[in-house]
Amino acid sequence: MKLKVEELNSSVQKLGEMIKDIKIAMLTTSNSEGKVHSRPMMTQEIEFDGDLWFFTSISSGKMFELESSQEVNVAYSSPEHSRYVSVSGQAEVVRDRAKAEELWNPLYKTWFKQGLEDPDLVLLKVKVDSAEY
Amino acid sequence: MKLKVEELNSSVQKLGEMIKDIKIAMLTTSNSEGKVHSRPMMTQEIEFDGDLWFFTSISSGKMFELESSQEVNVAYSSPEHSRYVSVSGQAEVVRDRAKAEELWNPLYKTWFKQGLEDPDLVLLKVKVDSAEY
Repeated sequence: MKLKVEELNSSVQKLGEMIKDIKIAMLTTSNSEGKVHSRPMMTQEIEFDGDLWFFTSISSGKMFELESSQEVNVAYSSPEHSRYVSVSGQAEVVRDRAKAEELWNPLYKTWFKQGLEDPDLVLLKVKVDSAEY
Repeated sequence: MKLKVEELNSSVQKLGEMIKDIKIAMLTTSNSEGKVHSRPMMTQEIEFDGDLWFFTSISSGKMFELESSQEVNVAYSSPEHSRYVSVSGQAEVVRDRAKAEELWNPLYKTWFKQGLEDPDLVLLKVKVDSAEY
């Protein structure tokens, strides 16, 4: 099943249900040479509204890749439910303290010891334009 | 942990161990517009030797994407073991009856009803050049 953005508007709820209990997703980016890399990202527990949000470090390698292309894929895998969801969209770095507070989970202290005060901490927003499952 | 090709040669066994019990991987490709898509692929049970092999259909959408770029990512997720492996490499369509017979599993009849005689059936070989876990 493949959805384009116009159908997605009425399918946001469905996609939200498909991904909501998957704690880790693989975020895939491509660099200026076209090489394609992925890495696990903690997902958010908030209700999906068309954008995906992640915490990340401004000094991480993926930032260099996002400079050459903002097009990304976020893959959600739940082998126990045989559920595999591919979400494509555009990624954007966002510094928004209020949003960060809304999304913050004490678990993230493992990666960001200073919590919300960590100068490296930024939000990565993925504006979803298609999804397949 | 990130490995380049020279280290990979001595780490093929390690990577093989990391991925061997993961039945489905997400294969990510990018198209001519730079959009990034992924889809689940059945993995093989053979010992990893530096190449990954998949069965696919010559008429599937990913074939169009591989025409514009051969660079792909294969992501292996095992949430129950908190194991996430990202493998980058170049994909190539291979028609090799002997190799297909070696890799064939009756389970694949779900997708290829005519089995090895299916005219759409081809092998996708991914030559690994780096891996991260």
